[in-house]
Parts: sequence; structure tokens; C-alpha cells
Amino acid sequence: MSKKTIIVFSGDYDKLMAAFIIANGAAAMDDEVTMFFTFWGLAALRKPVGAVANSADKSGLQKAFSAMLPKHAEKLGLSRFNFAGAGRSMMKKVMKSENVMTVAELMETAREQGVKMIACTMSMDVLGIGKDELVDGIEYAGVATYLSEADESNVNLFI
Amino acid sequence: MSKKTIIVFSGDYDKLMAAFIIANGAAAMDDEVTMFFTFWGLAALRKPVGAVANSADKSGLQKAFSAMLPKHAEKLGLSRFNFAGAGRSMMKKVMKSENVMTVAELMETAREQGVKMIACTMSMDVLGIGKDELVDGIEYAGVATYLSEADESNVNLFI
Amino acid sequence: MSKKTIIVFSGDYDKLMAAFIIANGAAAMDDEVTMFFTFWGLAALRKPVGAVANSADKSGLQKAFSAMLPKHAEKLGLSRFNFAGAGRSMMKKVMKSENVMTVAELMETAREQGVKMIACTMSMDVLGIGKDELVDGIEYAGVATYLSEADESNVNLFI
Repeated sequence: MSKKTIIVFSGDYDKLMAAFIIANGAAAMDDEVTMFFTFWGLAALRKPVGAVANSADKSGLQKAFSAMLPKHAEKLGLSRFNFAGAGRSMMKKVMKSENVMTVAELMETAREQGVKMIACTMSMDVLGIGKDELVDGIEYAGVATYLSEADESNVNLFI
Repeated sequence: MSKKTIIVFSGDYDKLMAAFIIANGAAAMDDEVTMFFTFWGLAALRKPVGAVANSADKSGLQKAFSAMLPKHAEKLGLSRFNFAGAGRSMMKKVMKSENVMTVAELMETAREQGVKMIACTMSMDVLGIGKDELVDGIEYAGVATYLSEADESNVNLFI
Repeated sequence: MSKKTIIVFSGDYDKLMAAFIIANGAAAMDDEVTMFFTFWGLAALRKPVGAVANSADKSGLQKAFSAMLPKHAEKLGLSRFNFAGAGRSMMKKVMKSENVMTVAELMETAREQGVKMIACTMSMDVLGIGKDELVDGIEYAGVATYLSEADESNVNLFI
């Protein structure tokens, strides 16, 4: 048993798939896994649209950023061939026929396997994302926490 | 002597250059190097156009993805300033005048130096890429194999 | 105390923020940190416009690449929602109001904390960037130097 960390910087659907597949694979081999979600990767942790009241204390700029960022992992685009979501839809159809899990399903499995998910508080400030907008059962921390975890891990990836 | 792994997720020409330069540098220092090609990175392992018959057993969606993905490493674009291939052509001209190897040449060197190249079988399913479409001399495996290699390595990168 | 390396391949403003925040966090915990700037990441090390005479010995192609690459870290775009620089300006306004440092400020802190910054000489050749165009106080080296540093480090990231 060893430890792994993954910084999830990207908000691309395909990169999130890669991150969760690695995290779940390691957890299945009894590794302790920490995923640290920062910048656009925070989009993966957002609650579905409608589940959140608009935060009244955001600045106009924070509201703009927050509005641009997809409201749910399954709405994120691909890093390539996205074509305004058509690429992602297409990929998800193939995934279904090949029995490959969606990001939402992979995240659910990660939770069940005890993968630790941390939201980067500095990125939340910059992008204007409040705790009430993120899913339950996650932790909140900064770079010092990430570095402590990485120091104890034998595989550390930036995705 | 130690081990290194590189996950090659990206299909950008410049990122592939970086991946192979690191792999070849490590192999030259007698390290064991494993490159794990997944998602768009699989494009680097494709046989040149014309060398492959169309797979009859692909779904329409898999055919579409497969058609969009460049058929050869030297046809891949840059992550920046690609301008429909003009940027890559320009970069390749400078590389030639500066005696920097192309991706195809770097891959050939990697082979000669015994760098292990693994194609991710799950990504092949999602993108509709068959073994007959990939170059010879590579291995096929999934995330468990990657994790076993990474556990034994002291440098693990995601590119 | 341990060592860390970060390959800075990307020239995106947000990814540079992430790279420097991790580097500075580790340096603050008394780690030795080496940042290896390659390809578009070299843009972060450029002197401001006007500070450099045009290099007479660049080829036309090198001049073109060199001209496209932003001349200063604070002019770099975001990896998402950049909108020709509007996204970056917006993010910088929020950062200011939230007391988050800019890339230029993060780099200054990195210097003060003794973070070692290395410019990749092969990328400089390919992109046509001369030493006279880069800031003072950095080192110049290739992949072998990176690998030696990485071999001694317990966290190695590619950003």
C-alpha cells in the first residue's frame, strides 16, 4: 500500500476521466489517493444547476467567471474535437456501448472507495465559487496541504 | 539506474516531442522507461494512412472519432500557434535547421533504446481504434499495468 | 527537507500561477525547488517588450515564432475563457481584490526564496529565443540536467 496524489487543474471531460480512472485504479489496489481540485478542475465538484441559490456576495467579475464555468461534470467539454458539446455526447455514447463509466459514475466510485477529494480554496476565491455550490463530502484546503500529501506519496500527477 | 513512467494523454506535436525527449534522455542514462499512450496520445502510435484497411466492426460513432484523429504522428498539430498545420510545418523547418529530431525520429530512437510503449486498451475502445491500426512492437494494457510500473518508478509524469 | 521539480511546458497564465504557487509553497517549507521552463513556458522568462534589441541572427521562421510568443508573463492568456486577454484581465482584477499574487509577483517571490529556474536550451533554439531576451538570474540547460534533478526529487510535475 502506498499513497498517490493527483492535482486536477483541467476542466476537460476527457482529462477528468483519466484522473478518476487512475484514482479508482489505485484505490482498488488499496492505495490512499488524494485528488486536489484547482482552477477549472473545480467544475467537476459543482452541484447540478438549480441545486444552488445564487450567492449574493459575489463581485460582478466573480459572477461572470462562475457563470462561464459549466455547472456539472457531465456538461464539461473535451480537450479536443468538442464541437460545442457534440464531441462529448458522441464519446459518451461510445462509452455506454463499451461499458465505460461516465465522469459522474467514476466520481461516485471514487467516493465509495474512499478517495479523498480536496477543493483548492484559493482557486475558489479567484473563480468566485462558494462552498454552497460544491458537492458534499469534500474537504477544503490550500497548497500546503497538497504538498504534505505529495511528500508522503510515491506517484504525484498534474492533470 | 531507476525507472520512469510517462502517461502520454496529449496528441499535440510539441507535447509528444517533450515526452519522447524526456523518455530518450532517461533511456540514455540507463533508466527503464515506460510510456503509456492514452486518449489522443494514441494518435502517435498510428500507422501511416493507407497502411490499414478500414475496420468493418466499428460503430458509426467510433468511425467518426477515428476519422478525426490524425493518422500519423507527423500530421499532429501544435498545442499553440498551429494555424491548421502551418505552425507545425514552421516548427519542423526550424528543427531541421537546428538538428532537432522530429517525433517520428524520436520514436524510432525510443524503440532502439528499449523504451516500453503501451497502448491503453480502454481508450482504444472509446476512440474506436483497433490493434491493426497501431504500429508493431508495442504492448496493450490498462490502468492496473500503468500503476504497477509507476509504483516502481521514481519519476512519473502526465503529459 | 526534500526536493521538487516542475517542468513548465505551458505558457498559459493560469497554469503558470499553479506552477509558481506550488514552487513557492514548497520553497516556504524549505524544499529545494527546480523549475525547468521549456517550449511555451519560456514566455514566462522573457524580458518586457522594449528591453531587448532584435536578434540579428534569427532565421525568418525563428523570428515568426518569437514574434507570436507573448513578450512578458503578464501578457499571457488563460487556458480557458481567455477571450483575447479579457479573461486574464478579469481574473487579475479578482486576484487583486482577493489579495492573490500575479505571476510576475509570484516569480519575484520564487527568486527571493531561491527557487532555481532553468531555461531549456533546445526549446530556445526551436523557438528562436536568445539568452539576451530572457530575464537575468536563470540557468541554461537540457534534459540531462532536468533528469538529474528529478532523480533526487520526491515530487516531479509536468505543467
